[in-house]
Amino acid sequence: MIILFGVFIRYDEESDTHWIEHRRKKNISTNLENDFYYRYPSFQDVHVMIFVGFGFLMTFLKRYSFGGVGFNFLIAAFGIQWALLMQGWFHHLDENDWKITIGVENLINADFCVASCLIAYGACLGKVSPVQLMVLTLFGVTLFAVEEYIILELLHAKDAGGSMVIHTFGAYYGLTISWVLYRPLLSQSRHLQGSVYHSDMFAMIGTLFLWMYWPSFNSAIADHGDGQHRAVINTYLALASSVLTTFAISSISQNNGKLDMVHIQNATLAGGVAMGTASEFMITPYGSLIVGFCSGIVSTFGYLFLTPFMEKTLKIQDTCGIHNLHAMPGVIGGIVGAITAASASESVYGKEGLINTFDFKDAVANRTVNIQGGYQAAGLFVAIAFGLVGGALVGGILKLPIWGDPADANCFDDDVYWEVVVGGHMMLF
Amino acid sequence: MIILFGVFIRYDEESDTHWIEHRRKKNISTNLENDFYYRYPSFQDVHVMIFVGFGFLMTFLKRYSFGGVGFNFLIAAFGIQWALLMQGWFHHLDENDWKITIGVENLINADFCVASCLIAYGACLGKVSPVQLMVLTLFGVTLFAVEEYIILELLHAKDAGGSMVIHTFGAYYGLTISWVLYRPLLSQSRHLQGSVYHSDMFAMIGTLFLWMYWPSFNSAIADHGDGQHRAVINTYLALASSVLTTFAISSISQNNGKLDMVHIQNATLAGGVAMGTASEFMITPYGSLIVGFCSGIVSTFGYLFLTPFMEKTLKIQDTCGIHNLHAMPGVIGGIVGAITAASASESVYGKEGLINTFDFKDAVANRTVNIQGGYQAAGLFVAIAFGLVGGALVGGILKLPIWGDPADANCFDDDVYWEVVVGGHMMLF
Amino acid sequence: MIILFGVFIRYDEESDTHWIEHRRKKNISTNLENDFYYRYPSFQDVHVMIFVGFGFLMTFLKRYSFGGVGFNFLIAAFGIQWALLMQGWFHHLDENDWKITIGVENLINADFCVASCLIAYGACLGKVSPVQLMVLTLFGVTLFAVEEYIILELLHAKDAGGSMVIHTFGAYYGLTISWVLYRPLLSQSRHLQGSVYHSDMFAMIGTLFLWMYWPSFNSAIADHGDGQHRAVINTYLALASSVLTTFAISSISQNNGKLDMVHIQNATLAGGVAMGTASEFMITPYGSLIVGFCSGIVSTFGYLFLTPFMEKTLKIQDTCGIHNLHAMPGVIGGIVGAITAASASESVYGKEGLINTFDFKDAVANRTVNIQGGYQAAGLFVAIAFGLVGGALVGGILKLPIWGDPADANCFDDDVYWEVVVGGHMMLF
Repeated sequence: MIILFGVFIRYDEESDTHWIEHRRKKNISTNLENDFYYRYPSFQDVHVMIFVGFGFLMTFLKRYSFGGVGFNFLIAAFGIQWALLMQGWFHHLDENDWKITIGVENLINADFCVASCLIAYGACLGKVSPVQLMVLTLFGVTLFAVEEYIILELLHAKDAGGSMVIHTFGAYYGLTISWVLYRPLLSQSRHLQGSVYHSDMFAMIGTLFLWMYWPSFNSAIADHGDGQHRAVINTYLALASSVLTTFAISSISQNNGKLDMVHIQNATLAGGVAMGTASEFMITPYGSLIVGFCSGIVSTFGYLFLTPFMEKTLKIQDTCGIHNLHAMPGVIGGIVGAITAASASESVYGKEGLINTFDFKDAVANRTVNIQGGYQAAGLFVAIAFGLVGGALVGGILKLPIWGDPADANCFDDDVYWEVVVGGHMMLF
Repeated sequence: MIILFGVFIRYDEESDTHWIEHRRKKNISTNLENDFYYRYPSFQDVHVMIFVGFGFLMTFLKRYSFGGVGFNFLIAAFGIQWALLMQGWFHHLDENDWKITIGVENLINADFCVASCLIAYGACLGKVSPVQLMVLTLFGVTLFAVEEYIILELLHAKDAGGSMVIHTFGAYYGLTISWVLYRPLLSQSRHLQGSVYHSDMFAMIGTLFLWMYWPSFNSAIADHGDGQHRAVINTYLALASSVLTTFAISSISQNNGKLDMVHIQNATLAGGVAMGTASEFMITPYGSLIVGFCSGIVSTFGYLFLTPFMEKTLKIQDTCGIHNLHAMPGVIGGIVGAITAASASESVYGKEGLINTFDFKDAVANRTVNIQGGYQAAGLFVAIAFGLVGGALVGGILKLPIWGDPADANCFDDDVYWEVVVGGHMMLF
Repeated sequence: MIILFGVFIRYDEESDTHWIEHRRKKNISTNLENDFYYRYPSFQDVHVMIFVGFGFLMTFLKRYSFGGVGFNFLIAAFGIQWALLMQGWFHHLDENDWKITIGVENLINADFCVASCLIAYGACLGKVSPVQLMVLTLFGVTLFAVEEYIILELLHAKDAGGSMVIHTFGAYYGLTISWVLYRPLLSQSRHLQGSVYHSDMFAMIGTLFLWMYWPSFNSAIADHGDGQHRAVINTYLALASSVLTTFAISSISQNNGKLDMVHIQNATLAGGVAMGTASEFMITPYGSLIVGFCSGIVSTFGYLFLTPFMEKTLKIQDTCGIHNLHAMPGVIGGIVGAITAASASESVYGKEGLINTFDFKDAVANRTVNIQGGYQAAGLFVAIAFGLVGGALVGGILKLPIWGDPADANCFDDDVYWEVVVGGHMMLF
């Protein structure tokens, strides 16, 4: 890794000491125009989502909290380095000197890239070894970079918050791997496959930091100015709407009207996933509420009916229920994005606004919004296809009996990979 | 909600794709002048305070942590939607087309509005049903919007951090409701009305995020430039001062010199509450320390003597002690604000500075600082009055036997509203 | 404290209501040029590191979590007030009117100053009384201000992230105090000197917030523009690299290949410490990876071999292992800074870039990079010397039998200083 960084990676012009000369040349009046000041607060929020958000969301199991937050830490830290290289090769390679120049936007994109692998980890949580997770991440990041290049650069689809590129791809990648690695005798560790009171509280830390910072996630790489502003408003509203829907469905779905922590921890986030693609668009505030409303319903019903069905019939063991939180809302997000793009108009966006929002310039200067809608839909299919095919391939690799994965009876148990104090066990049962 | 948003709510000019044309027309040189870049980092901090700060602060009960953080999540997510509408109707309604246009400042204000309802929730924690909380929030947000309109627009009082508008109103609203809903047999669930070691640790997460981000709370909607800058410094100092006072009083108040976690979790925050109104003013750094010092003392003594007295004599059962953390420091903040405003002078503020800080223009262009001080005091009385009267009315509604509130013996028990794993219980006693 | 603030401390020109006149005079075009908007997001991140990061990192002990996070809160809140005064006297005193003017950069520096005392607390955790901690902080802040003045102002060394000024000084200060306060019979409380499952989870909250926000720590007071930007990139990479190294070493160092939570909680942060001095320099991305790689190895091996050796042979009881996390990586950081500075060149930095980065102007306008490297190295020795000598003196004061420190058998037990509910104990053993 160090050698590859030495050969390829350099500071970009905004993080290089030549910035002052660059400023003068470009006639930039203030240091504030450095992209750093546009993006850094959002970057830090995204960074918290990746490490605390995803990490603590996966601590809900009573005896796998170390693995949840610890392996999340490991593969995210590995993945961001690899992502800087892979995304650099595909997006930022200077054709003259074969160097990748990086700035704060690349750090955000590396975090995004890793998010898709952490989603995939959610399906496999407790059933794979750290070495398998490293392999999953190595290939996941690589596939992500290719898929992202096709969707964003070749198809010129827009996907600021990554409903398609991150969530849909990551979820189907993880689900397919989990399907390949199906364990028929997993019920041997069923007694560990639940939560205790305080592990659910730790998971709520993850949920809330994801929920609160999701507006930053969807706006982090949106256009400067109104683009970031609008992405925040849309995501904020979609998320608020999801929460209400989730509480309502969770409550009425049980005979005794009690709420289920699994729903609250997960389905409340569905609005953020589903708003990923369209967050920059003029979807209107009530449009955002509708997206949050629908995705909250779909996600909660998924936890109620689909996860048991998938495990029993389709042989897909999905520990965190990523199909409900990322796959379905991600697909909804892709569809919403395609429809919203196709129905954009100059009367709503303004002439310049339309061009800015969809970047209709250079090679795609003459593209119409209808065609853009079609390309958005095509992007969704690319994401699904990469997830399914990539997951099957990587799942096959991970099935090789060389990776030290835990026995069926030892799944969901930190004792396999961590020094756990014996005295500490007693409190957990 | 979706329909109301569809009818009334639109993007404002800074979050609309017409921003680029707006920029050109107004001759704004850079995207950074979009209000988004002035306010977004503060907004995210406030957002964390609402959901993680208030949420986790209420997890201290040994068996009501799910309810503390979960219902906080529910009513905050509901409240911000309703607040965008109510505050919009009172403050931001365009008189030509009856639309409300929203941007990042509206999101902050919606979070502020919800904060007052979450404070009220603190008094009722563990004793009300989620449906009652929704009703409490529905009316609380409505009352807040009216009260805020009277104090800020009609009286033209200043209250950047909401000592009066948020804290005083919210606390008296909640206390009056709790007084109406008095439960004489609450001692039946006394065994659940305490903390365990780890629930106190979860509450510290809430305390610390509130404490750390309070400077953002008090500066989030302050004036651009020196206003936000000064509000941060004042709040930072008042909070630091409160911590020292709280530790000192808590330690010397017990015979054995031991510290009480309840004080540390709550009274350390009193300085932030009390600095709400005057945070923008030239109160001077040592003035801020004095405010933090006094409010820390008052708050800690409140927990020691007033809460038991109120429960026994006044029949007010105040689960989180919001009278000590929000009501009294809020009133102190209102008084400090009135005095500081009345004693402002051109020699300290500068001619333009005085006008900017108090917005002496248009209808109030000729107001003097003495009169401003009077209006500040009037604002405090409006906040108290709205809290008491509103609380009595809403308390009456909530007393109707249709809301599914828990029996006395089942108060402070998550088992009533949540699926709780039985195996997880053992560790809690 | 209030009196001292009253006499000395005033708002600076950017947080004073005269800002508008100042702006006009200096021809500043926008409120955004107020330093507040350059530094406030980083300040808040640093603030979180101090109170949640350090605070929760010290909650890992099974029965000392209240003391870990609570006393951290106390001494940090005390220290920032004292630091504003001490740093003000040494750095910001106006020679005309003997006033200290403060703005957001002073708040960051106060947080930095306190960090060195919190590091020292890490060595003494569980073995000292809160009064001793106040004394430790009182003198620690004072020593820090002097040492910082010598290193940054007199030697004109650069140390944006404080590898030398904060970490090296703080660690040797704490270790020397711990050496003076050596307790031969500490094994009487050995049963309390470990973690339980959930106390390790709380500590991970601290670890992750430190890890995520470290780029803000190292960039918070770096130069506007490319300086802050580059500091973030370098720190991000060094930290990512440390994580991989720590997991690898931790896993292969045990016979059974299991990971140790102590390593994951601490050594993953070593890259941030070691990148403190050189974060602003053109160390290149792969240089950052190498720094993270080396410091991660050194730190993990320190926990494995050096801490037991130091306790047994050198009579230094280092509760949190600050020698491994702060002392050694801090020294590495100082050395890396000296080498990087000495090898800087105009061809890499550009003529203006070199001057800006090292502030070669006024008294040091003619300094060469080689000489700068020498002064950097001198700064490191000053930091170590202040830590050792200061620690010996303060340790001597703290050894006086008047401070109410706990008996050997009561170390690491919250029961000594906190009201702990008896029912809550059961779950901890």
